[in-house]
Amino acid sequence: MDQLQLLEKIREKKSFLCIGLDTEPEKIPAFLLKEKDPVFEFNRRIIDATHSYCIAYKPNVAFYECNGPEGWKSLKATLDYIRGNYPGMMVIADAKRGDIGNTSKMYARTFFGHMDFDAVTVAPYMGEDSVKPFLEYGDKWVIILALTSNRGADDFQYHTDGGVRLFERVLKVSSSWGSTGNIMYVVGATRAAMLEDVRKIVPGHFLLIPGVGAQGGSLKEVASFGMNDSCGLLVNSSRAIIFADNTEKFAATAGEKAQEMQAEMAVLLKEKAIL
Amino acid sequence: MDQLQLLEKIREKKSFLCIGLDTEPEKIPAFLLKEKDPVFEFNRRIIDATHSYCIAYKPNVAFYECNGPEGWKSLKATLDYIRGNYPGMMVIADAKRGDIGNTSKMYARTFFGHMDFDAVTVAPYMGEDSVKPFLEYGDKWVIILALTSNRGADDFQYHTDGGVRLFERVLKVSSSWGSTGNIMYVVGATRAAMLEDVRKIVPGHFLLIPGVGAQGGSLKEVASFGMNDSCGLLVNSSRAIIFADNTEKFAATAGEKAQEMQAEMAVLLKEKAIL
Repeated sequence: MDQLQLLEKIREKKSFLCIGLDTEPEKIPAFLLKEKDPVFEFNRRIIDATHSYCIAYKPNVAFYECNGPEGWKSLKATLDYIRGNYPGMMVIADAKRGDIGNTSKMYARTFFGHMDFDAVTVAPYMGEDSVKPFLEYGDKWVIILALTSNRGADDFQYHTDGGVRLFERVLKVSSSWGSTGNIMYVVGATRAAMLEDVRKIVPGHFLLIPGVGAQGGSLKEVASFGMNDSCGLLVNSSRAIIFADNTEKFAATAGEKAQEMQAEMAVLLKEKAIL
Repeated sequence: MDQLQLLEKIREKKSFLCIGLDTEPEKIPAFLLKEKDPVFEFNRRIIDATHSYCIAYKPNVAFYECNGPEGWKSLKATLDYIRGNYPGMMVIADAKRGDIGNTSKMYARTFFGHMDFDAVTVAPYMGEDSVKPFLEYGDKWVIILALTSNRGADDFQYHTDGGVRLFERVLKVSSSWGSTGNIMYVVGATRAAMLEDVRKIVPGHFLLIPGVGAQGGSLKEVASFGMNDSCGLLVNSSRAIIFADNTEKFAATAGEKAQEMQAEMAVLLKEKAIL
């Protein structure tokens, strides 16, 4: 999926919503636990109920890996289900991987070879050779951590050298490794005002924005500071949608929550004349 | 395994060698490919041939994950084999994980709950809440990336704020999150001269040193700049041992290579009066 196709999809669905499939085993409604693969069954119903309102799904690998080999089967089954039923949907592996070159190559093979994800999140600490192997897959995206949504972002990401904060250096340096067509950045919604500074360095890149909803970030602020002429935003919401309800009606409730966000996004896209 | 037990083990084996089980599927000798689980069979033979000369094994998760759910079974089988046959051996999951708090908690559960590793490597970019969940397991270790052995280390790890380089800030800040009893740091052997600066900040912590051998680092230099009164070093070698030979004699050759490194280490430990 390229940048233009992504913008097409945003216009078609009037949405830049990404739904985080952070399917914490303990939070799955009890009635699903009798199923053979409760994690996949939960995801399948969430996807069926929400697919009209989003342009991407983002399973966080940690919530699958913690179930051992079975967890990886649930992850693969979820990806295959989306591919088989909702073609054109972007699917992001939120994995935050990164290692020396020959090892990152193996991680790239996992997510782009063994499994056919469209994008994978990577941590920048180890620099260029840790990211490059992911960029060697033509039609895939790398999403690099820049400024994260958690409290711990303060510990190192604002470390300032000659007026340049670490997250700004990550943006500057890493944007030369690829293009606006194969690199995106993670910028937390809890740092919405910082999006202005981010946009000075990467005006054209898509940004993946976690932290709206459960973590307290505001969608309106994110759009105001971060949206560009091609939208340039994928706003992720996970817990606030998928765990809004833990009764038998969880999927319908998730659909309603997703629709509410989509409606808000349609207004913001119109204000920016993208629709 | 605590710090004292680790030192005991170093004295007993006259070695501070960690063997990296970076079992790249393509590099497994051809005659093993007929086995049901070639990766495990390769590891089992390497372990049987080398266990006398090392105090730790470090599988890098990337080389298992790339085989899908079967890869995770090979990883677990390798861990279980070491536990069952060589009690007291340290086993490190080289995973370089790290995410927001509630997600890192899941990664900690994977490596310390679902699997009983002694230690896991983590990336520091996301700060305190991304590392803390790993420190909540009493008898386990977190090994934080400080200064890595690859070329990409230059991209961000030397970013300097008020005279403090990023890797130094990582050492300073993160050493307050735990103790010398549950935190170690990765410092690449290719940066041996930097070990002097590292030791100014964390004199008492164990350091995991990759990059000796295939990546070009020198064992003598590492010991000269990095060893403290409790040794304080785990030197990792992977390719130079496990892939030294790809004939039917690969395991015996690996044993010889490991023994050579152990002999060199015994001399260095004596020079420092640890033996």
